[in-house]
Amino acid sequence: MTGDLWQSSSIMAKRAVARGEPRQRHELSIAGQGGFHYVYGPYAAPVLTVDPGDVVVVETEDAFGGVITSEQDSPTAKLKFPYLNPQCGPIAMRGIGKGDCLAVRIHAVETRGEQPAGTTCIIPEFGGLVGTASTAMLNPPLPERVTKVHVDKSGVRWNDKITLPYQPFIGTIGISPEIEAISSLQPDYHGGNMDLPDVAPGAILYFPVHVQGGLLYVGDCHAAQGDGELSGVAIEQRATVTLQVDVIKDWTFAWPRLETEHFLMTIGSARPLEDAARIAYRELVRWMSADYGFDEIDAYMLLSQAGRIRLGNMVDPKYTIGASILKKYLV
Amino acid sequence: MTGDLWQSSSIMAKRAVARGEPRQRHELSIAGQGGFHYVYGPYAAPVLTVDPGDVVVVETEDAFGGVITSEQDSPTAKLKFPYLNPQCGPIAMRGIGKGDCLAVRIHAVETRGEQPAGTTCIIPEFGGLVGTASTAMLNPPLPERVTKVHVDKSGVRWNDKITLPYQPFIGTIGISPEIEAISSLQPDYHGGNMDLPDVAPGAILYFPVHVQGGLLYVGDCHAAQGDGELSGVAIEQRATVTLQVDVIKDWTFAWPRLETEHFLMTIGSARPLEDAARIAYRELVRWMSADYGFDEIDAYMLLSQAGRIRLGNMVDPKYTIGASILKKYLV
Amino acid sequence: MTGDLWQSSSIMAKRAVARGEPRQRHELSIAGQGGFHYVYGPYAAPVLTVDPGDVVVVETEDAFGGVITSEQDSPTAKLKFPYLNPQCGPIAMRGIGKGDCLAVRIHAVETRGEQPAGTTCIIPEFGGLVGTASTAMLNPPLPERVTKVHVDKSGVRWNDKITLPYQPFIGTIGISPEIEAISSLQPDYHGGNMDLPDVAPGAILYFPVHVQGGLLYVGDCHAAQGDGELSGVAIEQRATVTLQVDVIKDWTFAWPRLETEHFLMTIGSARPLEDAARIAYRELVRWMSADYGFDEIDAYMLLSQAGRIRLGNMVDPKYTIGASILKKYLV
Amino acid sequence: MTGDLWQSSSIMAKRAVARGEPRQRHELSIAGQGGFHYVYGPYAAPVLTVDPGDVVVVETEDAFGGVITSEQDSPTAKLKFPYLNPQCGPIAMRGIGKGDCLAVRIHAVETRGEQPAGTTCIIPEFGGLVGTASTAMLNPPLPERVTKVHVDKSGVRWNDKITLPYQPFIGTIGISPEIEAISSLQPDYHGGNMDLPDVAPGAILYFPVHVQGGLLYVGDCHAAQGDGELSGVAIEQRATVTLQVDVIKDWTFAWPRLETEHFLMTIGSARPLEDAARIAYRELVRWMSADYGFDEIDAYMLLSQAGRIRLGNMVDPKYTIGASILKKYLV
Repeated sequence: MTGDLWQSSSIMAKRAVARGEPRQRHELSIAGQGGFHYVYGPYAAPVLTVDPGDVVVVETEDAFGGVITSEQDSPTAKLKFPYLNPQCGPIAMRGIGKGDCLAVRIHAVETRGEQPAGTTCIIPEFGGLVGTASTAMLNPPLPERVTKVHVDKSGVRWNDKITLPYQPFIGTIGISPEIEAISSLQPDYHGGNMDLPDVAPGAILYFPVHVQGGLLYVGDCHAAQGDGELSGVAIEQRATVTLQVDVIKDWTFAWPRLETEHFLMTIGSARPLEDAARIAYRELVRWMSADYGFDEIDAYMLLSQAGRIRLGNMVDPKYTIGASILKKYLV
Repeated sequence: MTGDLWQSSSIMAKRAVARGEPRQRHELSIAGQGGFHYVYGPYAAPVLTVDPGDVVVVETEDAFGGVITSEQDSPTAKLKFPYLNPQCGPIAMRGIGKGDCLAVRIHAVETRGEQPAGTTCIIPEFGGLVGTASTAMLNPPLPERVTKVHVDKSGVRWNDKITLPYQPFIGTIGISPEIEAISSLQPDYHGGNMDLPDVAPGAILYFPVHVQGGLLYVGDCHAAQGDGELSGVAIEQRATVTLQVDVIKDWTFAWPRLETEHFLMTIGSARPLEDAARIAYRELVRWMSADYGFDEIDAYMLLSQAGRIRLGNMVDPKYTIGASILKKYLV
Repeated sequence: MTGDLWQSSSIMAKRAVARGEPRQRHELSIAGQGGFHYVYGPYAAPVLTVDPGDVVVVETEDAFGGVITSEQDSPTAKLKFPYLNPQCGPIAMRGIGKGDCLAVRIHAVETRGEQPAGTTCIIPEFGGLVGTASTAMLNPPLPERVTKVHVDKSGVRWNDKITLPYQPFIGTIGISPEIEAISSLQPDYHGGNMDLPDVAPGAILYFPVHVQGGLLYVGDCHAAQGDGELSGVAIEQRATVTLQVDVIKDWTFAWPRLETEHFLMTIGSARPLEDAARIAYRELVRWMSADYGFDEIDAYMLLSQAGRIRLGNMVDPKYTIGASILKKYLV
Repeated sequence: MTGDLWQSSSIMAKRAVARGEPRQRHELSIAGQGGFHYVYGPYAAPVLTVDPGDVVVVETEDAFGGVITSEQDSPTAKLKFPYLNPQCGPIAMRGIGKGDCLAVRIHAVETRGEQPAGTTCIIPEFGGLVGTASTAMLNPPLPERVTKVHVDKSGVRWNDKITLPYQPFIGTIGISPEIEAISSLQPDYHGGNMDLPDVAPGAILYFPVHVQGGLLYVGDCHAAQGDGELSGVAIEQRATVTLQVDVIKDWTFAWPRLETEHFLMTIGSARPLEDAARIAYRELVRWMSADYGFDEIDAYMLLSQAGRIRLGNMVDPKYTIGASILKKYLV
């Protein structure tokens, strides 16, 4: 639970109420959660209320709600839209409201449950290289397919020849919009289903808060994922997620932000994909301008030489891109 | 209140519970409405419950909530996001549930309130030819501007030289999603802020119902609008809307549909704009296939020669397109 | 050959060198053409050189080069990419150069050749509701299909029950870029494969000229087409096209323009589709500003109430939209 | 000139005519080049003809043609569209034709010319966060700005506080289309202005050849660039480029490919940006299927876990994305 050394110099450590120091520990088990949520919104009662600095250990279900248990299962038969991508929470924070920032440090994302603990599949009319409900086509769909894989800290055993690195992260996390209730399948300004691999242990997320208490939701962990989550499905898994939450008063902005030891990242979600990149990069320009003394055009020109892009998903109702700059250039 | 002759041959007349015949009349005044809604969702209690065939006369507020009262007003100062585009309702229908269709015949959209009754304006970072929150740009915004216009049945007096035809319609109408609460600024599968000029007196809308009672919302009437609602704002007005609602049991589909004397239209909303067109045209292919005996490829090839497109908006969080085919070809 | 009355008040009549008056008549037969062209560019020698006011009667081949002669033909087997959409020309104009405008009045588009004179088909990986080379999908393609139809002035006989109106127009027409040679399958700033039904008898096109002589190309006539040319293929036909060409000195702009009796239209081609609409509408704003005394924001706000959109194609390498305003508002 | 060890196991070493062994050396100086080219096409005569295995050392001009020599220069005043991004070549290869593959190993990209050797700038209506000719806006443009920077192997001296790593690469390289002449500002299936930082020393490019001789063009080197080339302009520089060219007979595919020691990459260029990603990923699926024994759906599902994306540019007439997979998974 002690932080990496860099965390003592993080924005969370410098600006948050509890200075990034972990305080009381809470557990939110599947049983404690009771029912899951399928929207991010202000209409559900909190399952837990915490204070700045508190650490919450959350058991999450996989994106399928655990119903795909065999390679013989049919996703179409098992999955009941819109009751997909079950979310835990909401967790309310004391002393936070609209105009503040909720900081969330990810301590751990640990695979749980029986092996094979990882699931991926082909779902008809969903994915980056097929016609979908939005990119509506008349072509016949791809056949369904389910693959179950053994997952542990040594790797994701794709098959006898290929083992992928174990790089767990949180696919879906965010806070409540002010009045909307947004499907847990969708990423947007509130976070949600960003499917961005940088949302991993060691990172700190910053969300601009829209309602009293912030109302944090989390679910949908992945053991590994490629850029774009091409087929629409990563190595989906049940997980135990350890989060430390804190409050930065009077810090607000438009889209989620992320900090690691080496870089600052802004996250945009939109269609078409260039708009996700535009949002992320403009937010980064604005951050460099507001907090690091750049004029906007200087920041824009520097990012043209030194900005980096991570493609989260190109399959969800909005696509997600993270844009980043190394901290060492923010001098 | 008597129908046009063609309405007796409409789908509503043939398939709905009340056969398209008007029954009891209800009034929903501004006072009766009480507070407005800014999301389309299942979390609000109905203000009115009606039966198939009932006629509802609704007083609507304009998209600005009536706060732009002078050409000297600053939209930025007056408009308080997300409390924009106030909606009346929800109106619950007895005997309707998921899997059924709510039919809504538009009898009238009448301008109400003092002159100048029409308002349009430039809102920074909103519109089809400017950078926005999604198509994020660093360019300076356009200056704000408000134009108030006299509107009556003889026309919209744009200025001393130009009078535009009075072509009132409903900018925002739809039903509740199953679990989402969608901003009234956004069009989607539930209808909402489609800004499609065909949603006008004489037309019948068909919505696939997601929740018990359907939960109809309506607001945001326009006195005139060009294709695309280019600057983001039409001739916005307060109105009195007369709707006749009915139920078609066990008729479901994915996106809103519209019928007039001469054509059938399907309505899609998405970004990028081609996806809105794809959704609309695929829905039309499917409708022609399900109800009019076409095979899908025949329908596709015929629409390539005879399909028509109407661009609703190219400014909202999703863009809206209606695709239509003349009824005379559905033989 | 005598003009409609309105043509005497056209921009061509007012501003062009020959005042829109027809002069010498030329014929460009298939035999006279010799080989066809498959790019729009400055690298081919003119087949004909004309003077302002001259009328050219051109025999065009269909978009398939005439090789699909039976409903049993396989488009895949018959069509040899990139040798598709054969174009006649280039026709050079004396006394025109970069910075001038080439005006082209369309007198007639007449179906020629044996019946069934119209052809349409399904080509795998091409069309608005299928995966393509750009919107790359893994779905299986649709099956190929060819439909041949009888076409004459009384209509397009789609089948025993459906006859579509005969509304012939030019699918591909334009001028040479300065240094590029652009595939005849593509529309762009030079015109080309716009597939816009307004490019029909009675209309006048205005092209900004990039090279000495202008270098006009034409081909690809359609007997009928729906908005968007949904399946990728209209009612393709061989035609005899009668064009009157003229020169407006020192009039330049960015994209093709079109005039009819009632409206002015600007034409944009781009992907995604909203960019085609943005181009077209911005060009219209600029035209209203440059020639009709509007300030840009006034024009923008008026188009939001009175602009009209026509979707040409949503299937070519760029999509095409025409944006128009009634002349009666340009007062 | 001696290869890295991995190159002996490259596809070039295994399959090309000269087995990836360097043979005769040629120099193509600025003087030897004579005039530059501004299109990629078959209409220009080769400046050099080479054999498989030959090494060509090319002096390139910067993307501005060297005309921006001071921070006081106005890009608008100096740059004369379409004569931008001057290209060297074309270089013809003996014994190559349509259906073959041209392999190009990049040995070196070395900055040349006086200091400050690097140039970047803001060009009005060009860039990722501004309205452009395609994403047409009415907003006022950003002000012009030019920045000249000292560039050497130790780094790019952005300012007194920031030095960026020196990571030179080729912004524009490719071969002739069959009949088109494509602007050197545009990337497409032929390569061209991809602005992809992976096109760097050590990499091997594979191009599918469309015309006899292949006709290789090259220009537009960068000393450093961020993902997306956000402002539209990288650290532009004059360079000396050393390329080794070879021929793989009877190997054809749709889009450029790239090999490094660790990964295989496919490169797609399109708008909207998701189509560039779709093209790149579908090409990678097809490559894995054709040459490495995957079935397409297996490849698709594996890429969903292990695919990587590099954003080249989000500013050119088409946007460019590279999709890659580690070679170690192609077992």
